[in-house]
This record gives sequence, C-alpha cells and structure tokens, in this order.
Amino acid sequence: MTFDTLWAAIEPVGRDLRSGGYRRFAWTREDATLREWFAGEAAARGLSLTLDRAGNQWAWWGDPDAAASVGRPGVVMGSHLDSVPDGGAYDGPLGVVSAFAALDALRARGFIPSRPVGVVNFADEEGARFGVACGGSRIITGALDGERARGLRDADGTPLAEAVARAGRDPAHLGPDPEALRRIGAFVELHVEQGRALAVLDRPVAVGSSIWPHGRWRLDLLGEANHAGTTRLEDRRDPMLALAAVITAAREAASARGCVATVGKVLVEPNGVNAIPSAVRAWLDARGPDEPDVRAVAEEVAARGGTLAVEESFTAETAFSAPLRDRLAALLGDAPVLGTGAGHDAGILAAAGIPAAMLFVRNPTGVSHSPAEHAERADCLAGVDALALAVADLAGPAGVVPRPQGEDR
Amino acid sequence: MTFDTLWAAIEPVGRDLRSGGYRRFAWTREDATLREWFAGEAAARGLSLTLDRAGNQWAWWGDPDAAASVGRPGVVMGSHLDSVPDGGAYDGPLGVVSAFAALDALRARGFIPSRPVGVVNFADEEGARFGVACGGSRIITGALDGERARGLRDADGTPLAEAVARAGRDPAHLGPDPEALRRIGAFVELHVEQGRALAVLDRPVAVGSSIWPHGRWRLDLLGEANHAGTTRLEDRRDPMLALAAVITAAREAASARGCVATVGKVLVEPNGVNAIPSAVRAWLDARGPDEPDVRAVAEEVAARGGTLAVEESFTAETAFSAPLRDRLAALLGDAPVLGTGAGHDAGILAAAGIPAAMLFVRNPTGVSHSPAEHAERADCLAGVDALALAVADLAGPAGVVPRPQGEDR
Repeated sequence: MTFDTLWAAIEPVGRDLRSGGYRRFAWTREDATLREWFAGEAAARGLSLTLDRAGNQWAWWGDPDAAASVGRPGVVMGSHLDSVPDGGAYDGPLGVVSAFAALDALRARGFIPSRPVGVVNFADEEGARFGVACGGSRIITGALDGERARGLRDADGTPLAEAVARAGRDPAHLGPDPEALRRIGAFVELHVEQGRALAVLDRPVAVGSSIWPHGRWRLDLLGEANHAGTTRLEDRRDPMLALAAVITAAREAASARGCVATVGKVLVEPNGVNAIPSAVRAWLDARGPDEPDVRAVAEEVAARGGTLAVEESFTAETAFSAPLRDRLAALLGDAPVLGTGAGHDAGILAAAGIPAAMLFVRNPTGVSHSPAEHAERADCLAGVDALALAVADLAGPAGVVPRPQGEDR
Repeated sequence: MTFDTLWAAIEPVGRDLRSGGYRRFAWTREDATLREWFAGEAAARGLSLTLDRAGNQWAWWGDPDAAASVGRPGVVMGSHLDSVPDGGAYDGPLGVVSAFAALDALRARGFIPSRPVGVVNFADEEGARFGVACGGSRIITGALDGERARGLRDADGTPLAEAVARAGRDPAHLGPDPEALRRIGAFVELHVEQGRALAVLDRPVAVGSSIWPHGRWRLDLLGEANHAGTTRLEDRRDPMLALAAVITAAREAASARGCVATVGKVLVEPNGVNAIPSAVRAWLDARGPDEPDVRAVAEEVAARGGTLAVEESFTAETAFSAPLRDRLAALLGDAPVLGTGAGHDAGILAAAGIPAAMLFVRNPTGVSHSPAEHAERADCLAGVDALALAVADLAGPAGVVPRPQGEDR
C-alpha cells in the first residue's frame, strides 16, 4: 500500500526519541530532508517540480501553465511538512502523504485528468521558528510582505533571509507570486482533525466550512507591590486575584457563547514567592463561529479583570468556497461539515479568492500539536479515498471546478 | 536634631532616581558606603567598633567583654542597612539611625549606663542578593552553616565567599560566634511597621510580640497541552483553571483563618498565547498567628487546586522575650503589642535564646518593601524616644535585664 510506504519514509525525520514529538522547523536540516523526500517522490512519479517565490514545492501532473492559459487551472492537493515544537506526526504530513497516495490511487485505476493535478508542500506553515503562521502561503498571496518576512528572526536571532539563504535559496525572491497562484483552479487540503467532533459523530472524514474568527488580546492587571507577610488582606491590591477572575471568566464567557477561550500565557512582576505582585500580564486567545461572540468574550473577560482588552491581532472568519464545500460533502456521502478554530494554508488561499476546501480525518484523542495527536490507519486510508474521489470529480471528464460566489471571497 | 542629620547622610546612598526605591545589596559598593558611614558615626561618638565572624558591625559604649565576664552583658539597639530591590528608605536604616540618635539623647541628658550599650548593623538581612534572609545573624548563631553561606550565589553566579573577599574580609571566618553573642544581654530592634495596625490604632509606637509561623509551599498543577483554537472546552485539561481556584482559595482560606496568604510566583509551561498549558507551577506563602491555621490554609488551597502542597520551608513561631515585651509595653505607656509576619534579626537572636524585643514605628501607608513605605518625622522621633527610654531602663541604675523564661526560648 503506497500510503504506508510514504508514511514510513518520513516518520523518523525530526522525531525526538524522549518525547516522541517532532521538531521539524522551517529551513532547518530536518526541513531540508523532508523537502528532498518530497522532490524524490515527485520525480519517482514523473511529476514536474516547481518552486514558487516563497519556496513552496509544487509537483505537477500535467502542464499547469498551459492549462491555466486556456482557462483550465489545476486541482491541487497537499499541506505542509513542518511542525510545532514537540508536535504530532499527522498535522501537515498527513495531507502531503495522502495527496501522493491519492494520485497513485487515481493512476492505478487508469484515471486521465482533464486538467493538471498538483501536490503542494507549503513552507513554514506552523510559524514555529519565525513566529508567523502560514508563512509560505502568506508570502505568495501578499498577505505577508516579503521585506517583513526577510526580517523575521528566530529565537537565536537568525533572520529568515539568512535561514533561506543557508538553505540554498535567494531570499530576494520572497514576495507575491501571481503566476504560481494562477495555476490553482482549486485547492483541497486534507488535515488531521484538531478536535473530537468526528469521534463523537463516529465518522472518518469531514469537510471544512470555515476558519473561525480569531483574536488575541493582552490584559494588563495592575496592583501594588507589597510584603507578603505583613500586609493585611484588606490593605492589598493584589493583581493575582484579577488573574483568577480573568481565567474563570474566560471559561464561563466562552462556554456561554459557544466559543473557545484560553489564557495560555501569563507574566507576573516581580514573580517572587514573598511579594504581592505589582502587575500581572495575561493573554487571551478567543475563537468561535461568530465574530460578535468572540469579541464579546474578550470584553467580558477584561471587565471581570477590571481592565481593558488590548487587541494584539484579530482575523475575521475565513469561509471556504461554499459550492466546493457542498459538492465535496455530497460526494463523500453527506460528510459532516465542520468549522475549525485553527488557521491553515487553505484559509490563506481562500482569503486570496482561490477556491479552497479542507477535508478532516478523525483524531480519536482530539489532541493537536502534541505527540498524542493520532489517526487510525483505516481512517487515513478513508482520507486518501476521499481525496481521490474529490480530485476525480474536480479534474475528471466533467471537470467543472465550482467557482466561489461573491459571498465566499 | 541628631536624627535628621544622621538620616540625611545616608538618604542618597543606593537610591534609584527613576523609581525612588533603594538598591542596597550585601557586600556591594553601596553596602560598603553604608558600612563606612556606620564606622564613622561610631568613631565620632568614641564607640569601639568590633566586627563579628559574619561581618556584622557592633559599636560599643563600654567594654562588653569585661561586662559579660562579670555577668552584666550589654544592651544592644540596631537593625540593618541593606534593602530589597526597589525597597523603601525605612526598612532597616530607621533602626540603626534611631539607635545612634537614642544613644545621643541618653548622653545629652547625662545618662551613665550600668552596663555596656551597643549599636549593631546586621549584614545582609534582606537576603536580596544571595537568597537567604537574616544572613548575618543566622551565621553567628549557627542557624546558617558557614560552609553553606560561602557557597550561596547571587544572580550573576558570584559566590558569597567571593563577594565577602572582594569587600576585604576573609570568608573563612564565616561561622558561629559565641563570643559576640555572649556580649548581648538584651537586643531591641526598632523597625518601621510593615502594616497599618498602628495607623488604625492611632498610636506612634508598638512593641513586638512574636514573628508568625511562616510557610512556603509549591503547588504543581498538571494539565494536558493542546491547541487553543481547536480543543473543545469539555475536552480540555487546562491547569490554568486550577490556578484560578488556588488563587481564590488562598484569599478565602486566609481570610477565614485570620492569616495572610499570597500567590506571588507562577510559572506556566509552555506559556504560549495559543497553547493550553501542560502545567502551571504556583507558590504559596502563608503566615499567621497560629501554626495549625497556617498549615490548614496550605492544605485547603492545595485541595482546591486538585494537588498537594509541597513544603519548601516552614518556620515555627518565634516569640520575643515575654518579660522584656511586657516591661517595654508598660514603659511606653501601655503601647500596643503586635505580632508580625516578617522575619527579623531580632527573631533569629530570640530563637538562639537571647532576650530580644522589637519596637514598631507607625507606617501610614502600611506598604513595605517599596518606595511607598513611610514614617512621619514625628513618629520617627517618638521611636527614638521609646528606644532611649527602653535602654535607660535596661542599662540604667536598676539595670535588670529581664531574662526570658523557658517558654520564650
């Protein structure tokens, strides 16, 4: 089975033997190994490998430029190969491996595409090294400025430009790439589910509907430094109590409004065992299906902490192409349609007006960005089948790629 | 007025002009300046300066060794001159300056002591640099082993032994000093109050009764790392919620049991905005008049956080000499008698069996270890008067130093 062989080839790359987690960061040696593997699999299939201005790898069956020029741009599958620190094996690689496996399955059954079929490996999706997620897709769509990208630095102070140069690529090329985008008639990203919805529904594969609105806020909780042993409780202005209120409010408000909210980062000043803190700084991450609810969560949480929510970033909802979504859901036997709280390259392409869709493969643990993330082999194979079915439809004899309607852009 | 002159001389030493706070750390240049000032004031008064094995400075009026050998050891006033980072002006120096001023006042009125009178500057009371509070008094009483003291390191990695050597002293001397202790018949430490009890009672000076039992515990709150955007609330094991419970419980349990409790230090793993933490580590500082209450606070807090309280340190109650306490309170017009949650050199000496007492001077802000700590000039002068009155009684013609009873040791 081609899926198993492909999976086994990359499984050891960047795996930490103690934790079982992966460290596959952009433009490192591990990344280079994975990119060589990708190039080798493309060559083994007679696919033509192209690199765009951000260094994303594209393996094409057919001539995407010729097809694009006659109004029949290609159908692309794929995802990314990099990981978060101590990430799982599936987030990213499952989409790339499944893409090659689906292409093999289509060829094995004698499928002749009516438009080019591509497999993509997007660079630096997790942003684990340089801090900006979906770097590869953001750069070619112009969502991340090339100059800004070159100046991003990793924890060691190495600029992205230098890391790219060391990997043998010219960082001056980083920038928008309309030619690469013109080749994409539709993009289908298969991804391990990052939650337990499919486990609850007892289904192996879902179709994505949208990426939830997502905001990050900073909450500055101010108090008064004082002696932990001698200051009466009634004389204290202890910002740690406001932190407790903020944490509790985040859970309550998110629960009441159907969102998720997380206080994942906290800095305490001066952070001494015997000192009432002078200040606590907390960060709130909130996401949910509806933007007003997400914003209301932040406001309610800040109010409970007696402070204001300082918005550090906000990304509005990214809806995937509705016609594509409906077509895939029907094709896959009325597959469940799920929104997601995580960002993906498919969302960046969708925001740039490219018809994009996602397929999610059941994750029984629901855990993500951790070695506990998992997908059963049978579900992975169901994912490959679904991807093959989707491409057979979109690049088949009928070959009509549903264009997004105005409301999907 | 001698108090004002003395106070003005040291006021600028180690003061940070931005914050108005003090940085007077043991065995630094600022510390050396203050020690030279102390030696100069001793010389100006014809007092004999001795240093003990920990480098504490003693300025004697009379011959303490001769007096001790005939069973009339001296009466000592004093405190310390070092500070916490960004500390206030009064914590420590008020006791040393008031001691010199009280000695001057006694001499001005022609007082002839019946036993030696001393002024002490204890080294490294705050432990701000090497992490152990009351280093000077702990070393000479044997509560801190000399070898362990030499190995303590500051934030730059400099061992205490090296800092002491750079200050011109032989670190090999650090150790118990029974000769120095034998000279002390009674010790009275005047200190700015670290709370608002005197402000509430509208009295300028109080007498100390005891140092409360004091414990520090670590609480390990374990969860499961997961994606902040995709993990359903009901699937989360978020240790931040346990932190909120711990903070809230600390305030509630302390309030219910008449104690103070503080969560001043928190470490979050991995402390990322978009990551549900895998673990939160919190430290609890609890103190109060009754040991069982203090221990119960820690247990209740840990239980509410779903964990155990790991004891990092516990100091039982240190009662000051009851006869000395009662005598001083009567002498000072039925002065209020207050317990304190802070450690002091007087507590270390009391624990070593030396009759020790404390006088507290009203602090209208109640704030401690901060530039906001304060004492009005009139209250400082009332403190000097109280100290002079105490010494006139203890080292006067009657000259009976109340020996502690068994229960005070």
